[in-house]
Amino acid sequence: MGAIITLTTDFGLADGYVAAMKGVVLGINPEAKLIDISHFIQPQNVAQAAFVLSTACESFPRGTIHLVVVDPGVGTERRAIILKTPVYIFVGPDNGVFSYLIRRFTDESGDSGQDQRELGPWLEAVEITNPRFWESPVSPTFHGRDIFAPVAAHLSLGVPPEDFGEAIETITVIPGLQSNRTQNGDTIGRIIHIDYFGNLITSIRNSDLPKETKGINIEAGNHVISGLSLTYGSAVGLLALIGSSGYLEISLRDGNAAAYLGVKPGDEIKIRNL
Amino acid sequence: MGAIITLTTDFGLADGYVAAMKGVVLGINPEAKLIDISHFIQPQNVAQAAFVLSTACESFPRGTIHLVVVDPGVGTERRAIILKTPVYIFVGPDNGVFSYLIRRFTDESGDSGQDQRELGPWLEAVEITNPRFWESPVSPTFHGRDIFAPVAAHLSLGVPPEDFGEAIETITVIPGLQSNRTQNGDTIGRIIHIDYFGNLITSIRNSDLPKETKGINIEAGNHVISGLSLTYGSAVGLLALIGSSGYLEISLRDGNAAAYLGVKPGDEIKIRNL
Amino acid sequence: MGAIITLTTDFGLADGYVAAMKGVVLGINPEAKLIDISHFIQPQNVAQAAFVLSTACESFPRGTIHLVVVDPGVGTERRAIILKTPVYIFVGPDNGVFSYLIRRFTDESGDSGQDQRELGPWLEAVEITNPRFWESPVSPTFHGRDIFAPVAAHLSLGVPPEDFGEAIETITVIPGLQSNRTQNGDTIGRIIHIDYFGNLITSIRNSDLPKETKGINIEAGNHVISGLSLTYGSAVGLLALIGSSGYLEISLRDGNAAAYLGVKPGDEIKIRNL
Repeated sequence: MGAIITLTTDFGLADGYVAAMKGVVLGINPEAKLIDISHFIQPQNVAQAAFVLSTACESFPRGTIHLVVVDPGVGTERRAIILKTPVYIFVGPDNGVFSYLIRRFTDESGDSGQDQRELGPWLEAVEITNPRFWESPVSPTFHGRDIFAPVAAHLSLGVPPEDFGEAIETITVIPGLQSNRTQNGDTIGRIIHIDYFGNLITSIRNSDLPKETKGINIEAGNHVISGLSLTYGSAVGLLALIGSSGYLEISLRDGNAAAYLGVKPGDEIKIRNL
Repeated sequence: MGAIITLTTDFGLADGYVAAMKGVVLGINPEAKLIDISHFIQPQNVAQAAFVLSTACESFPRGTIHLVVVDPGVGTERRAIILKTPVYIFVGPDNGVFSYLIRRFTDESGDSGQDQRELGPWLEAVEITNPRFWESPVSPTFHGRDIFAPVAAHLSLGVPPEDFGEAIETITVIPGLQSNRTQNGDTIGRIIHIDYFGNLITSIRNSDLPKETKGINIEAGNHVISGLSLTYGSAVGLLALIGSSGYLEISLRDGNAAAYLGVKPGDEIKIRNL
Repeated sequence: MGAIITLTTDFGLADGYVAAMKGVVLGINPEAKLIDISHFIQPQNVAQAAFVLSTACESFPRGTIHLVVVDPGVGTERRAIILKTPVYIFVGPDNGVFSYLIRRFTDESGDSGQDQRELGPWLEAVEITNPRFWESPVSPTFHGRDIFAPVAAHLSLGVPPEDFGEAIETITVIPGLQSNRTQNGDTIGRIIHIDYFGNLITSIRNSDLPKETKGINIEAGNHVISGLSLTYGSAVGLLALIGSSGYLEISLRDGNAAAYLGVKPGDEIKIRNL
């Protein structure tokens, strides 16, 4: 069965760790189509993995299996899970790596505090506990190869999620990842990702902005940007726009905005209504 | 239909942008075979993309679709095109990224001046204007995902180029990319690419050299190399040879020639006939 | 025939060299499944390639063809070979790049000295000499594209190894790669690889350690680690464990052990029995 399996890890591409996972998958399902989302997540940066996964996964066809191994707790108590949404199946550690993508399916009201989120009616999840589908022996340091990859491969052959373990009712989220705050009528968000071009992707979504964006200033790293542009090429110098995933981005024409502004993920961005 | 689609971008591999394009392709043609040419073109370096594409594309079988998204003008006036040669179909922005590969099919006499080249009898091109084959909505900042990828996918299913828009008669080239000049009997070319090993690929082709190459000196960055070597391992120190794509290359045995010489793309290389 | 062909090179991913090899393979066997092991082997580092290949290749299914092009001697006298083990077929230069993986099949007694190893009863090898299966012309600087890739592709179509050239009886190994020495009851090994996370993989295998590992100290770069951990997350600071490929690894919790210790491949690691 030619199912698509995507891979997102912090393994880099130098050591053959990703290839080992692919070899295991192909040994179980020779017809699986393996597509890399990213292997350059910063080591152990679960929040970054959560963001990259949530934006890239949406372009894949229904039924795609998304395998994520950014797993600082490998071999310790953290659960390994399968998460089923109405469109995709996700496989990975239960450490918050699915925080962004479950937003649209769950109650966000608790976003600023709790680190466990109720799955609600649209999501199902299973804790992976049945060793029948694992490689043997399991290395305590490489569950990507020995647990997650074979589970994804068996899922791609049509094994139902419930065969891998018991259903669970909550999964882990990273609290506060996407919350913005309001101060004197201004909206204050944060940089959640800096991409390869140095563009700053912020926690501020299109829907967080006033309908009339001509009258806003965006403040970032001691610079002020007036209003929004439509494209990277339609302004000179620093510009702000709604990026391809629906988030406010700050970009530098023909340059690297992150380096120019000297900012990093987590830094605040202010939207000021004039 | 298991057509091959190659991808060449300046997106890097960290953010999932390339994966989003692949997801779109597989949603349209699940049998497409996706092969990366490079995603480490320097940001917005159209000339570098043009070179890398022209050398790598030739190893692919007839009928391969080559998708290129190095597109500083995304969302602005630049045209999006399909270019059909006797062997391949190319999809990308009309910004000069096809400059090298059309050389053998078009009249080079205008190479040093014009930035529009007549297609002539061997090439056909279409401006992509028919939104029927695009993702909807189209992000103004990510035509790779929303226009170029779905167009390539529909081409791979056999949709003919003319269904995507109107035929055009000229395409954009980067003027002077490959022209060398002659001075007192010497040939002066330029470094057009520095590869991962630090080898300098120059604009001087095998056919630009005298038949007897024992009697030439190659001058680069204040160093002089006498004659040509056959392989990277057949000389000590700096050496010059005809590389695997037919261009004169300068290499440092067991080292990085670019770092050693302190040179960069665009710097001049002189061939002196003794 | 949908055979798997893996690729291990030192080509990087920026220049399209890897893509050229894949294009050649797909021109010969359109059904081949191409999987990258690594293209970020340090330039010309045959020992590193040998290690990465040996650990990643084992996760692939029986019959996989592993293509390796880390080839500082390209175009010179070194032989090009096909190596057949009971499980896989390997294709690459005969420069020691198969040193680790043949260990289990050959007599190790000569490991510290000779650079030619008898193949013995479990292995077969052929020197690639028959140009019938090569691209034409062969570039003297890119045998990966013009010899190794087409040979791997034809092997994947079922052409038997003996059609590519004459059987050979010995292959090249890098002497002493995996030998440890004993000094006053201590075992002294070396760092053989530093991975993307900065973990130090050493030449000391599980079987080289005493059964009771509580009573050992591991000395690396002026630091001492007491006993072994089970996982990367189960100790604070520096820790040692048996990694996923069976070698002793030294790791820094939430950090980069290689940078912290200031060590490099080749540096000694001492196991002290208290």
